[in-house]
Amino acid sequence: MTGPVGSTGPDAPAGGPATVRPFGERLADVLADAGPLCVGVDPHDWLLDAWGLGRDAAGVREFGLRVVEATAGGAGVVKPQVAFFERFGSGGLAALEEVLAAARAAGLLVVGDAKRGDVGSTMAAYAEAWTSPTSPLRVDALTVSPYLGVGALAGAASAARASGAGLFVLGATSNAEAHDLQSAVTATGPRAGRTVAAGIVEDVLDDNAAAGETRLGSIGLVLGATVDLADRGVDVSRLTTTPVLAPGFGAQGATFADLPRRFGPAARSVLASVSRDLLSAGPRDLASAVLRSSEEARSCLA
Amino acid sequence: MTGPVGSTGPDAPAGGPATVRPFGERLADVLADAGPLCVGVDPHDWLLDAWGLGRDAAGVREFGLRVVEATAGGAGVVKPQVAFFERFGSGGLAALEEVLAAARAAGLLVVGDAKRGDVGSTMAAYAEAWTSPTSPLRVDALTVSPYLGVGALAGAASAARASGAGLFVLGATSNAEAHDLQSAVTATGPRAGRTVAAGIVEDVLDDNAAAGETRLGSIGLVLGATVDLADRGVDVSRLTTTPVLAPGFGAQGATFADLPRRFGPAARSVLASVSRDLLSAGPRDLASAVLRSSEEARSCLA
Repeated sequence: MTGPVGSTGPDAPAGGPATVRPFGERLADVLADAGPLCVGVDPHDWLLDAWGLGRDAAGVREFGLRVVEATAGGAGVVKPQVAFFERFGSGGLAALEEVLAAARAAGLLVVGDAKRGDVGSTMAAYAEAWTSPTSPLRVDALTVSPYLGVGALAGAASAARASGAGLFVLGATSNAEAHDLQSAVTATGPRAGRTVAAGIVEDVLDDNAAAGETRLGSIGLVLGATVDLADRGVDVSRLTTTPVLAPGFGAQGATFADLPRRFGPAARSVLASVSRDLLSAGPRDLASAVLRSSEEARSCLA
Repeated sequence: MTGPVGSTGPDAPAGGPATVRPFGERLADVLADAGPLCVGVDPHDWLLDAWGLGRDAAGVREFGLRVVEATAGGAGVVKPQVAFFERFGSGGLAALEEVLAAARAAGLLVVGDAKRGDVGSTMAAYAEAWTSPTSPLRVDALTVSPYLGVGALAGAASAARASGAGLFVLGATSNAEAHDLQSAVTATGPRAGRTVAAGIVEDVLDDNAAAGETRLGSIGLVLGATVDLADRGVDVSRLTTTPVLAPGFGAQGATFADLPRRFGPAARSVLASVSRDLLSAGPRDLASAVLRSSEEARSCLA
């Protein structure tokens, strides 16, 4: 259904730049063809228990492979939550590598939810880990954290683009503890007078514009689906060519009907991420739950 | 030299809380006995080349083991930069696990420089990965990123303390791109009127106070050694019982003489981190370089 449109192919050779279309282009195709649903791969202990799987590397491997299989027929994007694999150390990361390979083989786009963030050569090493065409951990896009400044992520953005990959920069998140920091008012520099979150939005827009990405950029934003974006200083009408990863659908409170309500003209560039609500359907019913959810999400944008 | 004072023992059984002293106490002993030097384990490609090692998992493993061996006689703390291992995927993390085990066996304190940061159960999974006594990736303290609010790290702080481990929360960093965000002024909540960085400092101080840690807390701060802390709104005189991880010594511009100058009364709770300047000495001369550097650092606090 989503076919190989969003993929570099089951096992694309490490050809690099020339053979892979930009992430923003590939994501735009997936959003148009398969719709906005993004299925989280979050192997919590309680879900492993409910699925009859072990709380270990083998368990998260099996869990991830089943989610990929169930998603392939009904949605275009999966988002593995790296922490749930990393807690089993190198064995957990090896399990994740198998899940990522399966997702690529199934023609799914993969967002690695790792929220990495550092500076200079260290950030370059994270970009190498997650976006280099030869890395076993390669994903189509990686979530990153901007506490060290969006400027510190510029090298990673370039590296990602060179491999046809992308980034999603944390912007405005829905957890209560984030409000005060993300709403703080910048006093210096080119974003003076804006909130921290709004400054990050502008930095990302500028980065995509500088790269000449006019359909959909390769650098996106994480904006929680239940956040009052206006209160956080974010103007959604400016996001029509910027990918948005929006967690918070389903158990966390947002409904797909919120997509046009909250994101307005930018609703069609939003990936609506659902985890618990789908995963709690269990392995036998997950595929049909994904399909139903995907159709519902698309209908809200029709 | 530093002996087992900072360690849980070569292969401490997974005993948990009862058998491990708080990280803040263990760090205070190391600072008093071995001094402030923290040796970075940053296997850049150019260093791997210079050391005659491969740019692969085997190379970073060997690099890390040699740094641990060279540090054990001269300083008390190593700080592996996780990104340089992660870029080789699960194989790189397996290499890191061996380096961490060797550091524990050598009686060194280990700060895992991973800058993880997330919310709720996901952050708990990172805490499990890096501070659980049974995790192959366990370290004595982990660097974490507060973009989602310091409050979002509270669960990880509790989990770390329960295992006798700690966290270092990014506060004020020296890279130019970080200035505007970290100096933004909080407009809402208990830290209203303070800069973002200063609010984080207060949150960390409160957390240690609430835990009753009066000698040296288990939750510390990352404050760059070359940052103008007053400009960032941070009052160093308040940090006498809070561990500070200060990168930026050596090639990055700070000298050990800056320790008392920049941190004043808090200078004795600062870990002075050096990477390039020491690592570029090469594997044969690293041990003597560490010893010399460690003695110089101590003399500046005498």
